[in-house]
Amino acid sequence: MRVLKLDSGYNIGVPPASCQMLEPATSIEQPEQILVDQDRSLPHLSIVSTGGTIASKIDYRTGAVTSQFTAAELMRAIPGLGSIGQYRTVQLASILSENMTPSLWQELARAIYQEIKDGAEGVIVTHGTDTMAYSAAAVSFMLKTPVPVVFVGSQRSADRPSSDNLMNGLCSARAAVSDLGEVAVVMHQTSSDDFCAIHRATRVRKMHTSRRDAFQSIGSSPIGTIAYPSLEVNLTADAVRRQPIEPELADRLEERCGLLQFVPGLSPDILAAYDGYRGLVLSGTGLGHVSTTWFRQLGSMIEDGTTIVMTSQCLSGRVCDRVYDTGRDLLKIGVVEGGTLLPEVALVKLMWVLGQEKDEEKARMMMTMDLRGEAPGRSAHGL
Amino acid sequence: MRVLKLDSGYNIGVPPASCQMLEPATSIEQPEQILVDQDRSLPHLSIVSTGGTIASKIDYRTGAVTSQFTAAELMRAIPGLGSIGQYRTVQLASILSENMTPSLWQELARAIYQEIKDGAEGVIVTHGTDTMAYSAAAVSFMLKTPVPVVFVGSQRSADRPSSDNLMNGLCSARAAVSDLGEVAVVMHQTSSDDFCAIHRATRVRKMHTSRRDAFQSIGSSPIGTIAYPSLEVNLTADAVRRQPIEPELADRLEERCGLLQFVPGLSPDILAAYDGYRGLVLSGTGLGHVSTTWFRQLGSMIEDGTTIVMTSQCLSGRVCDRVYDTGRDLLKIGVVEGGTLLPEVALVKLMWVLGQEKDEEKARMMMTMDLRGEAPGRSAHGL
Repeated sequence: MRVLKLDSGYNIGVPPASCQMLEPATSIEQPEQILVDQDRSLPHLSIVSTGGTIASKIDYRTGAVTSQFTAAELMRAIPGLGSIGQYRTVQLASILSENMTPSLWQELARAIYQEIKDGAEGVIVTHGTDTMAYSAAAVSFMLKTPVPVVFVGSQRSADRPSSDNLMNGLCSARAAVSDLGEVAVVMHQTSSDDFCAIHRATRVRKMHTSRRDAFQSIGSSPIGTIAYPSLEVNLTADAVRRQPIEPELADRLEERCGLLQFVPGLSPDILAAYDGYRGLVLSGTGLGHVSTTWFRQLGSMIEDGTTIVMTSQCLSGRVCDRVYDTGRDLLKIGVVEGGTLLPEVALVKLMWVLGQEKDEEKARMMMTMDLRGEAPGRSAHGL
Repeated sequence: MRVLKLDSGYNIGVPPASCQMLEPATSIEQPEQILVDQDRSLPHLSIVSTGGTIASKIDYRTGAVTSQFTAAELMRAIPGLGSIGQYRTVQLASILSENMTPSLWQELARAIYQEIKDGAEGVIVTHGTDTMAYSAAAVSFMLKTPVPVVFVGSQRSADRPSSDNLMNGLCSARAAVSDLGEVAVVMHQTSSDDFCAIHRATRVRKMHTSRRDAFQSIGSSPIGTIAYPSLEVNLTADAVRRQPIEPELADRLEERCGLLQFVPGLSPDILAAYDGYRGLVLSGTGLGHVSTTWFRQLGSMIEDGTTIVMTSQCLSGRVCDRVYDTGRDLLKIGVVEGGTLLPEVALVKLMWVLGQEKDEEKARMMMTMDLRGEAPGRSAHGL
């Protein structure tokens, strides 16, 4: 069988007898020269590699996928990159993204900051998809950027005919030379190879384990698209544009922060596990609720200096504790309403806010403000 | 201003000067007699009331919403119910649903079981929307039912012009006299008053804090729809139909079960909080991952007899730990793959499975089987 990759991204098998090879398939080896053949008239881009599927191949020992490519190898694997920009590559890590940590987020933010200081006109971060949204949100808070910082990954490894690494890689490079001026995630918008979406780093979530269009902006639209294969970029009016400013880095994080999902009957005893934490995000039910049996313990944690932020496990919509009696009681004991913050983004933001601001009242205030597009205003659907 | 409720469910204000009242608005008082005027030729339905917004009104003392109606009052509030069935009402609780507990799930399952034994041809459970999906899933596991068991709630209280209580209530009654033979959730399918969806109890999730169409079937389609106002029911081929069987109750639950979402950098020390738990559902990243730093502690918990089930915080798609090295290691230490189980449903199922089955190996096996439509097979998108 010969395997052909279709425009849709899927593959089709053709019996060898029914087709004729017109030229030998040597293209896999050719792109190696691209690194030396960079077009010096093109924009300066940096590729910061952290690992993940976009930089992975099959481990033929176990049959499983491991993270092995370097950023340079990635450029060889995606030949079209060479006609979009000229590249520097920085290999920060080579891990599957479930092993990312807040310390690595900090290293990442510092590396990106340095690349921009050193003249990068756009930065591409290759990242495993599992925790890419967390890292992108973290960098978004830590770094004020004048240029595009584009996170990209792939859901299926390069050796698979349905891999999304080629298209995502090219689209991310195109986004990195666009007029964008914020941190974003670029991934397949549909299950076909027709568009990539540009998601705001603080509104995106991986919503499917395996689909190529797993990444979705929650409660707001993507801030742009990139058509494929034309690579035409369309930014929405909402997308932040390039600005003639210096990059700013504020990379302190308070790691003693947790995220806890409330489930029916969960004993407030579980809160003891967060003793000594400076911040706790609750993923409550509905408009932002937990059992009334939790109020006393939550109250004393708040008195002891823990900042507690209420989000909703619904993911979409606004937390509003003013509607029901019980919610009003939560506000009375000092729980901070998370507004439209995604629970995971609320956790990352809380780590960052508590890292920046020692004054509790100011920190609480910052949690309710919209700093990086993470907390868009009341939607048309309202309450 | 006169306020008119539109077909879309929203209201419009009309200046009094521009309209004329043709008859006095006394209809609010009339329905009181419906309870005595039941049509004895109609199907026997039971309404089991647990509270929630569908049974709530404004507390004019605080301005907030409290849960105060009884099931009988609910029937008065929704006059059309009387032409669909004749009703018995059982008031099990009057709480906002964040205060539901596994013990109340058991009481609920027993009450529904008793109603069916006593001749109910369909059961309607009114429930707060916050944790309705959890309760419905729990009842689905505990009770094998020959007749429809329909959970219904409302996102906006009866005193609000955009309330969904009337339409949801009527649609739930219509579903309760339909050919359905499983536990389901009936709520608005769109943001207009045109259709209610019938969701399988084990595949539904509240996905928005406030929209009337907040409930969505995840990773599968609703098992039916009810048109409004015609109340025509359409069940899909996939929906379980009424069966001439006796109801079966298996109401033991193991409450020492938890649900924990993994986030980057989360220390495995948190697992100590689940010491003594018999079951733990992990809401991992992507295909079902946690940091490799967790493996040793997870391994010893499993050796100590805790059943650990991996689900994905992506919500959609299948957990498959066979793809990456790290996932294969998780399987080796004995983590159970949660397949397509929603994290919350996995928790409820684990409580139920460990309540039924003391043999660890058999319990693990049951967690991977599809017992109540909770774990549909590989989707067309596959892996």
